[in-house]
Amino acid sequence: MSVADLPGPLLSELSEGEILARIFPRLPEADAALLGPGDDAAVVAAPDGRFVVTTDTMVEGKDFSRDWSLPDEIGVKAAMSNLADVVAMGARPTALTVALAAPRDTPVAFLEMLADGIRDACAQVAPGCGVVGGDLAASDTIVIAVTAFGDLAGRAALLRSGAQIGDEIAVSGLLGVSGAGLTLLQRFGVQARDNFPDAVGWHVAPYPAIGPDMVADLEHAHAAMDISDSLSLDASRMAAASDVTMALDITVISAMADAVARVSGLSMNEAQRMVIEGGEDHAILATFADGGVPEGFIPLGRVVTRGEHDVTVAGAGIAPTGWNPFAG
Amino acid sequence: MSVADLPGPLLSELSEGEILARIFPRLPEADAALLGPGDDAAVVAAPDGRFVVTTDTMVEGKDFSRDWSLPDEIGVKAAMSNLADVVAMGARPTALTVALAAPRDTPVAFLEMLADGIRDACAQVAPGCGVVGGDLAASDTIVIAVTAFGDLAGRAALLRSGAQIGDEIAVSGLLGVSGAGLTLLQRFGVQARDNFPDAVGWHVAPYPAIGPDMVADLEHAHAAMDISDSLSLDASRMAAASDVTMALDITVISAMADAVARVSGLSMNEAQRMVIEGGEDHAILATFADGGVPEGFIPLGRVVTRGEHDVTVAGAGIAPTGWNPFAG
Repeated sequence: MSVADLPGPLLSELSEGEILARIFPRLPEADAALLGPGDDAAVVAAPDGRFVVTTDTMVEGKDFSRDWSLPDEIGVKAAMSNLADVVAMGARPTALTVALAAPRDTPVAFLEMLADGIRDACAQVAPGCGVVGGDLAASDTIVIAVTAFGDLAGRAALLRSGAQIGDEIAVSGLLGVSGAGLTLLQRFGVQARDNFPDAVGWHVAPYPAIGPDMVADLEHAHAAMDISDSLSLDASRMAAASDVTMALDITVISAMADAVARVSGLSMNEAQRMVIEGGEDHAILATFADGGVPEGFIPLGRVVTRGEHDVTVAGAGIAPTGWNPFAG
Repeated sequence: MSVADLPGPLLSELSEGEILARIFPRLPEADAALLGPGDDAAVVAAPDGRFVVTTDTMVEGKDFSRDWSLPDEIGVKAAMSNLADVVAMGARPTALTVALAAPRDTPVAFLEMLADGIRDACAQVAPGCGVVGGDLAASDTIVIAVTAFGDLAGRAALLRSGAQIGDEIAVSGLLGVSGAGLTLLQRFGVQARDNFPDAVGWHVAPYPAIGPDMVADLEHAHAAMDISDSLSLDASRMAAASDVTMALDITVISAMADAVARVSGLSMNEAQRMVIEGGEDHAILATFADGGVPEGFIPLGRVVTRGEHDVTVAGAGIAPTGWNPFAG
């Protein structure tokens, strides 16, 4: 389970070229790559004359732990958090670059398995999306900075500012499970994996309900965004950007909390807090004209005229609480 | 001089939104941005249906030191190393994303000055190139991962595999100064800045001779690449990719070593080693048809039929020696 036990050479025992020769065959090739890795830069197709770009960083000890996660799970998470952002813009992910900083005594097998996880995430969300470039650097802690690109195929980008009064609010999957998994890891350590495999597995390697059809599902959305920091925090951002209030339905949140409690053993109170304040599920939050919620999305409430609060649950305002990278 | 002395709040004392509100006004806006920062992703124009992309990481303690460099110098270096890669492909830089991991007790002023350096580098190399997105994460060490984009404006990308036998080899600026500056910092510590301001200043914040006209200068090049790791290492990569030998002229290398010795106080022997084995000058290495070297480029030798060695100096083979991220 521990990274230190991985077999094979360490990063310091191979040249950069030898390391890359082991990793690149495991990474997915991008269909959109006109020129792949190996020169100073890659060349990527942007068929409609625009491209979508987002970047997201994961730091060992803050965003993941080598004690809790297998390297391929870390790769899944690093890729998913970026792919979800591209999809949330209404774009099809086309390519990634991966900048990795790691200690000299990291086994090369760690990078190989990380590559496998990136490949798996691309295969689920956007077959044909691949890695077009990267960078390796030495660092005391592992830092993975993924930048992801997408193709809008002629459509307008889907913004968080587009929510309209009367829209239905919906989310592409269950919320709170990742936060519950993190809570269990913090409380019980790595053995939480054995006792609560669903919750912890979702935290270490989220497989959000985002597939190649999601872009089509979002075609008629008015607004969309990735829920990465928490429902309360991200919905409040959408509310502020759209100058509306997001009125969430307590029934659905309770039903989600019930599901979270079942896979995590947390109390209903804690589980409900996870649904509202937990992050990293990477579900897509979107608003649709009345009656336009696509199959598979879970209705979560209604966009209403802006009131005192950004977000309400059962009519009561809730504080935006969630992930803050520099908080204690 | 020390980062700890910077005035104002620490990262942990502000919300992510408050931090971004201080940084973004200092970063350059990108002319190519169709949708800038603030949503899940940015949208960037790629007028000819393709974009060039490269990524490069800098890690505190490995690639820079807060004891040696001012924050704006670190920003210059992080941007330049990426901008040079885009230009080396024959493309005009259009946009950057910046992923930054930093300790919680980093003064926000550090990020503000870093932004100033990124702005200055963009202004020199490619006015109109700006920052379209980013990410902030907490980490024990500072890690800066910049991803840069460029526009080929209908031209073919300029590869390192294009060198042709008979070509003249040329470089866009002096080599070895950055390596000499690093040697002085390692030998004498931060006071080397006072005694050898030119060499050390170049190391901490390279301003390579790359301006907005460089893309036009490279229009008739057969091959090009950024010299980031060293002349011997990068020229050997071009030689291998083009299946040629790069025959370098000892006269020019000696003249460069003379200039390096003058600004650094190093011996001629050491200075010559810096020209051949030092990195991070971010000059562009290119080959041109006989007689086609543009004004401002320094002729460095000739592309010849592939022999025993990738690179020769005065006819003798030299070993590819330079920067390796995981070397001791």
